[in-house]
Amino acid sequence: MSEVLTFIESNLGRFRAELYAFLRIPSISAKAEFIEDTRRSAQWLADRMRDAGLEAEIIETPGHPVVLGEWRGAGEAAPTVLVYGHYDVQPPEPLEEWISPPFEPTERDGRIYARGSADDKGQLYMHVKALEGHLTANGSLPVNVVVLAEGEEETGSPNLVPFVDANIDRLACDVVLISDTSMFSEGLPSLGFSLRGLAYFEIHVSGAKSDLHSGEYGGAVANPGNALAHILATLHEPTGRVAIEGFYDDVIEWDTGTRAQIESLPHSDEQYRKDLGVDELVGEDGFSTLERLWIRPSCDVNGLLCGYTGEGAKTVLPNHAMAKVSFRLVPDQTDSKVRALLERHVNKVAPPGVTVQIKELHGGRPWKASVEGRYFEAATEALKEAFGTAPVLVGGGGSIPIVVEFEERLHAPVLLVGFSLPGCNLHAPNEWLPVENFERGIGALALLYQKLAS
Amino acid sequence: MSEVLTFIESNLGRFRAELYAFLRIPSISAKAEFIEDTRRSAQWLADRMRDAGLEAEIIETPGHPVVLGEWRGAGEAAPTVLVYGHYDVQPPEPLEEWISPPFEPTERDGRIYARGSADDKGQLYMHVKALEGHLTANGSLPVNVVVLAEGEEETGSPNLVPFVDANIDRLACDVVLISDTSMFSEGLPSLGFSLRGLAYFEIHVSGAKSDLHSGEYGGAVANPGNALAHILATLHEPTGRVAIEGFYDDVIEWDTGTRAQIESLPHSDEQYRKDLGVDELVGEDGFSTLERLWIRPSCDVNGLLCGYTGEGAKTVLPNHAMAKVSFRLVPDQTDSKVRALLERHVNKVAPPGVTVQIKELHGGRPWKASVEGRYFEAATEALKEAFGTAPVLVGGGGSIPIVVEFEERLHAPVLLVGFSLPGCNLHAPNEWLPVENFERGIGALALLYQKLAS
Repeated sequence: MSEVLTFIESNLGRFRAELYAFLRIPSISAKAEFIEDTRRSAQWLADRMRDAGLEAEIIETPGHPVVLGEWRGAGEAAPTVLVYGHYDVQPPEPLEEWISPPFEPTERDGRIYARGSADDKGQLYMHVKALEGHLTANGSLPVNVVVLAEGEEETGSPNLVPFVDANIDRLACDVVLISDTSMFSEGLPSLGFSLRGLAYFEIHVSGAKSDLHSGEYGGAVANPGNALAHILATLHEPTGRVAIEGFYDDVIEWDTGTRAQIESLPHSDEQYRKDLGVDELVGEDGFSTLERLWIRPSCDVNGLLCGYTGEGAKTVLPNHAMAKVSFRLVPDQTDSKVRALLERHVNKVAPPGVTVQIKELHGGRPWKASVEGRYFEAATEALKEAFGTAPVLVGGGGSIPIVVEFEERLHAPVLLVGFSLPGCNLHAPNEWLPVENFERGIGALALLYQKLAS
Repeated sequence: MSEVLTFIESNLGRFRAELYAFLRIPSISAKAEFIEDTRRSAQWLADRMRDAGLEAEIIETPGHPVVLGEWRGAGEAAPTVLVYGHYDVQPPEPLEEWISPPFEPTERDGRIYARGSADDKGQLYMHVKALEGHLTANGSLPVNVVVLAEGEEETGSPNLVPFVDANIDRLACDVVLISDTSMFSEGLPSLGFSLRGLAYFEIHVSGAKSDLHSGEYGGAVANPGNALAHILATLHEPTGRVAIEGFYDDVIEWDTGTRAQIESLPHSDEQYRKDLGVDELVGEDGFSTLERLWIRPSCDVNGLLCGYTGEGAKTVLPNHAMAKVSFRLVPDQTDSKVRALLERHVNKVAPPGVTVQIKELHGGRPWKASVEGRYFEAATEALKEAFGTAPVLVGGGGSIPIVVEFEERLHAPVLLVGFSLPGCNLHAPNEWLPVENFERGIGALALLYQKLAS
């Protein structure tokens, strides 16, 4: 192992330069005008996998392609590890809030600022470099490896499950490794024990057949903007609970052990509040901040658009209003059930004089890990060795819908080994990854590959 | 008079062609990029006033200029009439809903379609042509006339009252004439008895210091989009009343005579509903549709903007949400009082974890006419003669804030003699004015100038 780690150590400058090239490609999967850039990103990744010593293939899907890297020289007795990551990124808007351009990686205060640095190009590329370490220093890997990098994670992975099903033998594995989450705090390595799912909707409210003058018609015709506000306001109780009937029916009660483990983490509400720049934290009564984020569901407006939003005062009574609204789900909620409950709720509360249409944009299932077994122990040891302290168990407020699918389809446990940090501006302007975690993480992953074999 | 009417009749084609040239100038006062077009519109109007036989002057203000046309040859014994109108127009958005371009006047089904056709270039220009009729056919006018055309009506006339105050002697008059309202229905000439006022606000809700990932933070941090919806939803009671404490304190009880007069008008809720393309009409309990529009206040969302509104699903927890919200006021409400009440209300209902800022964009006072006296009778007779039927009294749901100011400052009654029709898409795509009303209205105004003298 020491040759592997020495090789990695002495090549960190090159690794970072390569990552910057990866980050410069605006692979925004949600936007049609970036389709060629997204493909270029896949091509770039496949080339680097080959440079690292893997076989690599770009495999078409109905959407953005999958990049598959493979090395199967460890023999049948060695376990097979499936690494999953994604090379697509979120849209960078609002652009004016970026201190340095989203697709021009810039280092400030020990952080790499760029869209995708944390989510997920930076973390995905750490695996490629850890594998390169073994393959260059030793000429081989201690395990068989399949790296599956998709280009549609940020749009809900619409083609990934069909891809897994169509390639089920090729993807067969003993353990799945994913680095797309965060450490609990600086210097504190972490393993994931849960993820929230997602149910994302657009709510469209329509009124009169055209926009009207708010003076000529105001007071006698339903206003879709007012109606939408009314509908959205009914989604929460004053206690912070989601007010949709039946919404909590499938929410599991977490064991006291898990809640005690969460409670023991070094979290300060006061610091969290300050970091966010808010006067007060809010959320569901009866739960701590970490519980609200990890083991309780939520409901957020992601976007609103209605009427005139430009400069000045236009006295329009709009005939349409739209909200993007999403729910974070916890075991055992499903997006299809939430959709049905939401539709029933909205039908009940929608005011007269407007019509309401609900469109589901995407959904993903929540996940609860089994935190035991040889692979879990291997990860614990590798992280301890690389970071000098034992990893903590953390929940994930966000969604990686494919995790549940991998577990069920491949009958393999999933390890979430993430290296970004809280506050790293995922899906927001000024996303960043610590240089130290990028570098130390490559070593940790190299160790992990070793330990997974033993 | 018959020479005047004959001249008008035989020049209607030219009058319409001239109006089209006026409508082609995009004098959008609210948008900085149209400042030159707005000035060009003023210049064009001044030129046409001179062609008609008036003296005309363009007078600067801190904003868009005023055009002043004058003819004072009728002598001191004759009354002086102040005609007020505006040459600026509303923004045309959303452009894609216009069947023909907003600034390319197009005739369809006896209607002139263009931004400003009804509000107010078309109606203002009818006065210029009625005056031309007298001045060309008779060489004189039966009354002294001052035509005051401003370019900032659609942005709340910020510089008009100072202009009036600074020119109070030059604007001294016996009666004010405004054509910027609508007839009650086709063929039914109308005189205004009321106008609603306006109080227009932007409400800004701010949360964390930057946008956040809705998975990483959702459930533990206040969402400005949800908070804004909550605030907006508290503005109405289920009965349709505005739910702000004290909001109705200054609303007058209208006399039973006025309410009976409103009730007697040929209005069909069913037809109104169908024309709007809605399933149901809504509004304040206990009042008819016309009462809701004319003698009761209202509260409408004019715009909403928050978070991600583009294509696809961006899982953002936005840090800012904005609503444009306006109130239509009735006597004796004032925008300053409504602003204070709204601020108190919002402070009371704003949820924790966000900050709320209220910005007043503009305000205007409501108005109640005195429907008697020689000038009112002159208008009644002129309209009866031109349209073959006596005018009805109508309220105005919209605002012409300057009306109250004229009355108070000039000590002269105001006559609202409008020629557009309900459904003419004021402030909306596909604004129109009936060709017949444009033509018949010029004759009616020529008669009115005559009758005001006697």
